[in-house]
Amino acid sequence: MNPEFIDSLVIKNNTKIIFLIMDGLGGLPMEGTNQTELESAKTPNLDALARTSVCGLLDPVGYGITPGSGPAHFALFGYDPIKNNIGRGILEAAGIDFPMTDRDLLIRINFATIDANGTIIDRRAGRIDNATNQRICRKLQQNIQKLSDIEIIFEPVREHRALLVLRGDGLREEILETDPQKTGLPPLSPNALVPEAKETAALLQKLIHRAGEILSDEEKANMMLLRGYSRYHRYPSVMERFGLNALAIAGYPMYRGIARLLGMVIGPQPSSIREEFLALRDRYSQHDFFFLHVKPTDSRGEDGDFDAKVAVIEEVDRLIPLITDLKPDVLVVTGDHSTPAALASHSWHPLPVLLSSATCRPDRVDRFGERDCIAGGLGRLPTVYLMGLALAHARRLEKFGA
Amino acid sequence: MNPEFIDSLVIKNNTKIIFLIMDGLGGLPMEGTNQTELESAKTPNLDALARTSVCGLLDPVGYGITPGSGPAHFALFGYDPIKNNIGRGILEAAGIDFPMTDRDLLIRINFATIDANGTIIDRRAGRIDNATNQRICRKLQQNIQKLSDIEIIFEPVREHRALLVLRGDGLREEILETDPQKTGLPPLSPNALVPEAKETAALLQKLIHRAGEILSDEEKANMMLLRGYSRYHRYPSVMERFGLNALAIAGYPMYRGIARLLGMVIGPQPSSIREEFLALRDRYSQHDFFFLHVKPTDSRGEDGDFDAKVAVIEEVDRLIPLITDLKPDVLVVTGDHSTPAALASHSWHPLPVLLSSATCRPDRVDRFGERDCIAGGLGRLPTVYLMGLALAHARRLEKFGA
Repeated sequence: MNPEFIDSLVIKNNTKIIFLIMDGLGGLPMEGTNQTELESAKTPNLDALARTSVCGLLDPVGYGITPGSGPAHFALFGYDPIKNNIGRGILEAAGIDFPMTDRDLLIRINFATIDANGTIIDRRAGRIDNATNQRICRKLQQNIQKLSDIEIIFEPVREHRALLVLRGDGLREEILETDPQKTGLPPLSPNALVPEAKETAALLQKLIHRAGEILSDEEKANMMLLRGYSRYHRYPSVMERFGLNALAIAGYPMYRGIARLLGMVIGPQPSSIREEFLALRDRYSQHDFFFLHVKPTDSRGEDGDFDAKVAVIEEVDRLIPLITDLKPDVLVVTGDHSTPAALASHSWHPLPVLLSSATCRPDRVDRFGERDCIAGGLGRLPTVYLMGLALAHARRLEKFGA
Repeated sequence: MNPEFIDSLVIKNNTKIIFLIMDGLGGLPMEGTNQTELESAKTPNLDALARTSVCGLLDPVGYGITPGSGPAHFALFGYDPIKNNIGRGILEAAGIDFPMTDRDLLIRINFATIDANGTIIDRRAGRIDNATNQRICRKLQQNIQKLSDIEIIFEPVREHRALLVLRGDGLREEILETDPQKTGLPPLSPNALVPEAKETAALLQKLIHRAGEILSDEEKANMMLLRGYSRYHRYPSVMERFGLNALAIAGYPMYRGIARLLGMVIGPQPSSIREEFLALRDRYSQHDFFFLHVKPTDSRGEDGDFDAKVAVIEEVDRLIPLITDLKPDVLVVTGDHSTPAALASHSWHPLPVLLSSATCRPDRVDRFGERDCIAGGLGRLPTVYLMGLALAHARRLEKFGA
C-alpha cells in the first residue's frame, strides 16, 4: 500500500493523538545481562501501558537500512522516507527557522581550519563558540551579498556550523561536497555532478575562494566546507494530508526543523525532558496531534554509554503519568531508529513501538522491550504506516470502498 | 522499499558473509510425530546457532507462490525474483558455462520418443545416457549450422536434456513451448505468442522439422521438444551491486549457472556435502561472500522421502563447526524454498532462516525449526531483503540520509 493512500480517507474529529518519540530508542543486548537498554531499564509505567496496548517492531526505512534522523522522522509522520529524502541543507535551514523560498539552494557550512598549504588540520575549526560563529557569518555577509545575479546569505547555526543560502534562478544541487571527511587533505572542489550543475558549481567555486580571502586572518575558522546541498521543496503539511493541527515539542533544532517543514506548530524550547512533558500538558487543549521528541536517548547511545541511556529511559518512564493523565485517544510510544550503545551509532535494528488506545486490540505483550514486542499484535512493519494506524485508532479514517 | 535501494548505500570492508543454503529446506509435519523434516532432525549445532541468532521466516517470491530454483535463488542474492525472472534456456546455458552473447536466443531441448504417427510416447526419450546425448547433438550440429542468417548451436547437457542456441538479430522469445506435458499427444507447434515473434517461430518450425528428419533413425531420441525460450540478458553482478567478491560452491549445474550469471567465482565441483564445506574452508581467505549450496535436501523432498531428507539435514548439522570455526562476520542458514516430502514437490510455504552475527539482536528462538522461527526477530519477510540484512550486519551499508 502506498503510504499516501490513507490521505483520501481522512476525516476530522476531536480526538487527540500523542507521539512520544525517544530518539534512538532501540538497542542491543549488553554482554553479561543479555538485556538491551530498554529491557534493562525499570519502566513500570511503560510496561503497564504495554499490557493494554498493541505492540510491534518498526523498520524506519527498510530491512537493513540505518536511517539518519531526517528519513526516520519523515517515516514517523507518514511520509515515504525514500521518496522524500531531505538534504542536510534544508534540515539545517528549517532548524533555525530560516524563511525559505522556492528559489533557494540551501547548504550546510562547516567552518574548518586549514594550514598555510591549504591542508585541513581541523574539520570543525576547534568547535568555535556560537559568538565567534556569529561574528564570522556577519563578516562574510558584510563582504559578500551577491555573486552574479545570485543573492548570498550566511546564517550562523551553532559552534562550527552555519547555513549558506544561494537565492536565484536555475540553481542545482548536484554538486560534490567539499569536505574530504579527513584531515591532512585539502578541501575538495565543488564539482558539478551533472552537466546542468556547472554554472552553480562555478559560482560556488568563486564563493569559496572569496570566503577564504575574507577568513584568511582568522585563527581557527579560516575556511568553509560545504555539504548537504538541497533545493527547497515544499511538503504537504500534516494539516493538508491528515487534517491534524499539530504541535511539536523538541529541544533540538533539527527536529523542530523537520516538524516545521511538515507544517507543525513549534512549541517552546524546553530545557529538560520534564519541561517538554509540562509544555505538552499546557498546550493540550490547543492541538490535536502532539510530537514530543526526547533527544538524550540517542545522544547517550551515540556516546556508547549504556547506563546513561538506561537512565534517560527511566526518567521518561517516570514522566509518563503526565501524559496518560490527559487520557489521549491515541498514545504512541516509540523511537525514530535504534542507537545501540554497543555500536555507539544509529543502526538498522527494528525498534519497539506501543500504541495505546481504547480502540486497540491489546496483544499479550506485558513489558515494553525489543524482544517482548516481537510477539506484538502489530508484528513488524515499516514505520511509515504508523501514522495511518494512529489515525485509524483515533477514528480519523473512514471506511474504504462500499 | 525497492530491493535495489540498498545498492546506493554499499561500502566495502573486510568482513565475510556466508550463505548456507539447504535447497528445499522448508517442510510440512508428518502425521504421527507432527514434526517437519527440520523439526524432526537432531540439529544440536543449528539449534545452538539459533539461540544467538536472529531468526525468521522467508517468503521467496510472495504469499502463496511456489518458486522454481531460478527465482528463489535470485531472491536470495537480493535480485527481485519477479522483475528478474529468468528463462530456463538461459539457466541451462549458464549451467554448462556456455559463452552467451547478447544476440542469443537460448532454448532447452528435451529429447523425446515419438511413434510412427508422431505421437509422443516418452517425453524423456527413456532418459538416454550422456554419451548418446553427445552423439545426437554432434549429429544435429553436423547437419545444421545455419538457417537463413541465424547460426544454430546444439550443446548436450545431460541425459535427455540439451541446449539449443539461435544466434542472430531480431530473435524473440515469445514462442509457445512444444512439450504438451503428456504422452499420447503430438508435440505442439512453436507458435508465435506475439506478432513480432512470427519470424522466429517460422524458423523454429523449420528447425524442428529438419531435426526430426535427422533423428528419424534414432531408436529413442527421435524428436526434440523445446521449452524455456530466453533471450540473453546480462545482470549486474554481486560485485557491481554489493562490492562482494563471491565464491559459489555448488554441485549442480543450475546453481553454478545462476551464480555465474551474477558474477560469482565458481568453486570446484564437490562430490559430497562434506567436500563442499571443506572447499569453502580452503578458499576462505580469497573471497568475502560464500554461497554454499546443498542440493539433496530438495532432491529427497522431491522424492517424498521424509526420513532421507531428515538425514541430509542432520549431515549438514554435523558439518556446521567447519564453518562456524571460521568465525564469519555474518552466517545465514536457510533454503531457497520449501520442498515438503509430504508434497514431493516445491511449495509456497515460508521457510526458516537464521542470521548469526556479533551485531545481531538475538531473539528468544532456541531451536531451528519452522514453527520456532515464527517467533523470530526478523518476523516474516520477503527473501529479497535478506541480502540487505546480511550486508547491514556486516557493516557494509552506510547510513541513509542526514
